[in-house]
Amino acid sequence: MSAPPSKQEQTLLTFPSSHAALINPYLPPLDREGDRGENDDEQEEEEEEARQHHGRAGKVHLTLTYAHSLDAALARAPGVRTVLSGPASKAMTHYLRARHDAILVGVGTAVADDPGLNSRLRGAAGLVRVGSQPRPVVLDPRGRWLVGAESKVVRLAAEGKGLGPWVFVGEGVVVDEGRRKLLERVGGGYVAVPLGRKGRFEWGDVLGVLGRKGIRSVMVEGGGEVINSLLARDGKAFVDSVIVTIAPTWLGQGDVVVSPPRMEGPAGEPPEQLRLTDVKWCPMGEDVVLCGRIAR
Amino acid sequence: MSAPPSKQEQTLLTFPSSHAALINPYLPPLDREGDRGENDDEQEEEEEEARQHHGRAGKVHLTLTYAHSLDAALARAPGVRTVLSGPASKAMTHYLRARHDAILVGVGTAVADDPGLNSRLRGAAGLVRVGSQPRPVVLDPRGRWLVGAESKVVRLAAEGKGLGPWVFVGEGVVVDEGRRKLLERVGGGYVAVPLGRKGRFEWGDVLGVLGRKGIRSVMVEGGGEVINSLLARDGKAFVDSVIVTIAPTWLGQGDVVVSPPRMEGPAGEPPEQLRLTDVKWCPMGEDVVLCGRIAR
Repeated sequence: MSAPPSKQEQTLLTFPSSHAALINPYLPPLDREGDRGENDDEQEEEEEEARQHHGRAGKVHLTLTYAHSLDAALARAPGVRTVLSGPASKAMTHYLRARHDAILVGVGTAVADDPGLNSRLRGAAGLVRVGSQPRPVVLDPRGRWLVGAESKVVRLAAEGKGLGPWVFVGEGVVVDEGRRKLLERVGGGYVAVPLGRKGRFEWGDVLGVLGRKGIRSVMVEGGGEVINSLLARDGKAFVDSVIVTIAPTWLGQGDVVVSPPRMEGPAGEPPEQLRLTDVKWCPMGEDVVLCGRIAR
Repeated sequence: MSAPPSKQEQTLLTFPSSHAALINPYLPPLDREGDRGENDDEQEEEEEEARQHHGRAGKVHLTLTYAHSLDAALARAPGVRTVLSGPASKAMTHYLRARHDAILVGVGTAVADDPGLNSRLRGAAGLVRVGSQPRPVVLDPRGRWLVGAESKVVRLAAEGKGLGPWVFVGEGVVVDEGRRKLLERVGGGYVAVPLGRKGRFEWGDVLGVLGRKGIRSVMVEGGGEVINSLLARDGKAFVDSVIVTIAPTWLGQGDVVVSPPRMEGPAGEPPEQLRLTDVKWCPMGEDVVLCGRIAR
């Protein structure tokens, strides 16, 4: 279906500056936003600058953000898009998207939700440049996302309401030529990334590629597998801040839950407890938004 | 071990009235507290009064309260006592205990945690009668709790710091005579309650017995099985308010989690989503306290 954009897609959202003030300390610095260039000519210069400023390639501010129920479930069932949070926290999501260079999701989310991955935030005075949009990034190690002209993220890019998506596929994965051309036509493309253990990407590789492409901040939105891998032993070092919306509902056993794997020590010590530090709880409508950093 | 009461046990806690004001709307009315009688002579009169005031026997205000991690885990492992919440929410627990006629836990919690189930709240001006203690109630359908003189709840009752526990056992379950005498010596006792399906108690029966014994409010503290049964289809009608403390930590997959069974409709309809209404989020130290009622 290539339905015209719905009313909802076109509606701009506002996010009160009082709420923004609570969340801003957990976001990448604002001055980075001004540096963002979508122009190919600026690309090489930016990459060099990124390398100089951030030392090792891949030093990218990573904000992990998602909404779940009281029982830590992201969805009513695996692969079922579920609206959990209210309008206030929805506006926050679009504010966060406007404050990052890129938004990253796993292929499961791309397939299940057909997300737009753009920001519909109304340009808030002085906070974000009107029209600055984050780069959608989809982690698709095996190249299974059948992205097409009707995919929302492609449609929004074609309409100038978002950037073309970068689809990260495993090195050596053969992609469909039609899809490659489609992505390139809207300013996106396939990006080959080395495959790590178990046929998954390593976060160091993903952030390394993003950093070399001039991305200085990325917001990871989901889904469950991606989030849990960032809360796991090998992922947590890459997380700069965590922003979790909790909705006052229970979805029940059997859902996709955010719960990291048990972190047994290498010599079988008792599991390590993962804690947030520098914690702030911000009630927002019926939901609460938790901001924090992972205690090292 | 019959170690002397630790320093910690003797420390009284204070709960700021500003916090109490947020939580009070979710608690049983204060005037009920004044009616509480621990004197046997008053017992019969009270039971009659309870029957008259509340219509059907068993109409008891039930507050469901517990603390869990972001991934809805109650403990690091089944049967392992885990301190999740900080001092502010701990003081709240003792305030809540002072505001209810009874505290109820499942036998798993009694065995794993050896809980005191009394209130160590310092008499807050005008809010609670100094010395008023809730009745500990342990649901033990098969009579497997090996309660003894060294059990904390018995010790506290012997020291006048709490009431003797009522242990609810299934009708027909044979209990040890020594244990029965021990419980009766500290003002508690075994109470036979009909067994329902799957050898468990029905909430209607449990609350019916409590109501007939003059209890007008009960705070259910855990563990996982008891909590989940109150969030399930058959239990939720008995819940008047829910007070959940969430700690900014993840315990990891494999823990005892609060997540009700999926509520598939009788004809296989999609699961019903359990929501809270009249929601209030109260940041308290590093934790947040969620108050609400179950949406009908």
